[in-house]
Amino acid sequence: MELRFTKMHGLGNDFIVIDAISQPAALSALDSAVVRRLADRHFGIGFDQLLIVEPAREGGDFRYRIFNADGGEVEQCGNGARCFARFVHDRNLTNRHTIRVETARGIITPTIEINGEVSVNMGVPCFEPAQIPFTAPQRALTYPLTIRDKELEISAVSMGNPHAVQIVADIEQAPVASEGPLIESHERFPERVNAGFMQIIDRTHIRLRVFERGAGETLACGTGACAAVVCGIARNLLDNEVRVAMRGGQLHIRWAGENHPVWMTGPAVTVFEGTIHL
Amino acid sequence: MELRFTKMHGLGNDFIVIDAISQPAALSALDSAVVRRLADRHFGIGFDQLLIVEPAREGGDFRYRIFNADGGEVEQCGNGARCFARFVHDRNLTNRHTIRVETARGIITPTIEINGEVSVNMGVPCFEPAQIPFTAPQRALTYPLTIRDKELEISAVSMGNPHAVQIVADIEQAPVASEGPLIESHERFPERVNAGFMQIIDRTHIRLRVFERGAGETLACGTGACAAVVCGIARNLLDNEVRVAMRGGQLHIRWAGENHPVWMTGPAVTVFEGTIHL
Repeated sequence: MELRFTKMHGLGNDFIVIDAISQPAALSALDSAVVRRLADRHFGIGFDQLLIVEPAREGGDFRYRIFNADGGEVEQCGNGARCFARFVHDRNLTNRHTIRVETARGIITPTIEINGEVSVNMGVPCFEPAQIPFTAPQRALTYPLTIRDKELEISAVSMGNPHAVQIVADIEQAPVASEGPLIESHERFPERVNAGFMQIIDRTHIRLRVFERGAGETLACGTGACAAVVCGIARNLLDNEVRVAMRGGQLHIRWAGENHPVWMTGPAVTVFEGTIHL
Repeated sequence: MELRFTKMHGLGNDFIVIDAISQPAALSALDSAVVRRLADRHFGIGFDQLLIVEPAREGGDFRYRIFNADGGEVEQCGNGARCFARFVHDRNLTNRHTIRVETARGIITPTIEINGEVSVNMGVPCFEPAQIPFTAPQRALTYPLTIRDKELEISAVSMGNPHAVQIVADIEQAPVASEGPLIESHERFPERVNAGFMQIIDRTHIRLRVFERGAGETLACGTGACAAVVCGIARNLLDNEVRVAMRGGQLHIRWAGENHPVWMTGPAVTVFEGTIHL
């Protein structure tokens, strides 16, 4: 079959997006072996994740699913949600600015902003150690964490996935490559952890690098940006709206505080349109 | 402007091919900054090389030019020539099976074979040390080459670019990553060298890995396959037609001996068609 797709990226996290509403046959054609083949950057199209837009089933406007390059289905992705929203908007599949999308984790509601960026509700952060999961005697704003013979000061939070965030004086000099793997696999994080390194420029502006669980340092990490900002706000080092500069670009993060969801706003870019014969 | 392109690969060496005959505006739009942006695998289309098909100027059927991902123009590329030939053939830009193409180095004549693979004349190999260039008292079939405290036995040949080829017992165990850089930068190769590691299965079949000058180990290397086979034939270890298995796939190499050109036959695969707004 001929499959039409759109290549997009959010801060360099790149996707192919497939409209399975007009191409329903795509759903059966895209088994995990095909996804892996398409994901290859030399022999295939190349992408971090595959995003499939499907008709709604449970009262939303659409349903969507996300697959990693290894063919496995994943639950959520902030960069993917932004690309999804721009995709259905740019193709006139909807004229709503706030879109109700059924995902594997329930309904999300990405919103297209006036400037074309997309805001996504990233959920309520969870600081309870047992739920992160993180081994600690009680909840705290910061925790000592020993790696090799060095003691770090980290904050710990779950944004649906676990994050350990530390403050550094200079993001360019941060030991991301050397300490990242040690934090990621630290025994006190039984499901491993994403390791964030945050430089605070002022109360509304941080710079961030993230060593992602299972992936290493990436150009940008949406949940990592949320995690860093909520940890900084919880410690009263940041205001409620913060610009996060990462290597792949920047995000705006808003959080009103405990029990409120985190809102993330950022770009979603269409790179090209393609057709492939499966 | 809207630019149509085709993504192709030859043994995993991947290209976008642009028909500048039907899209003449592409020629002025594709400056080196644009090429670099398009080459990026996360923010752009992603490719090793960009191939532009232009109208002939000097009596050939076509003219073509190749640009690296860094925006610089390069002279020749065996994998690119195969993709070029399939591209003009599959799009019915010609009905000839042997195509005369004007390149920066003169006319080449890729030929579409019955099985859809493409044969390319890769030129006459040169074994003269001074022309490789390689520092040696006189031409020989093999030379001792000392790296660190170890003495290797290499053959040396130019296929337009310099190659040092050694025979190994087991390609999987070959020290490509450790010895490759030492051979590449050896002082006896003043313009550096591509380092080939060849396992001879029998007189018509070798396995090959190549540490490419300036690029490290690659999935496949067309000139490296030619170099390995001609060195093996010169040493009477191989017949005149040899199958070369590399990680990215296989090539067939033919060489009739001294002063004859080397013919390389291999696949060229269309992956997808795309359209991008520049």
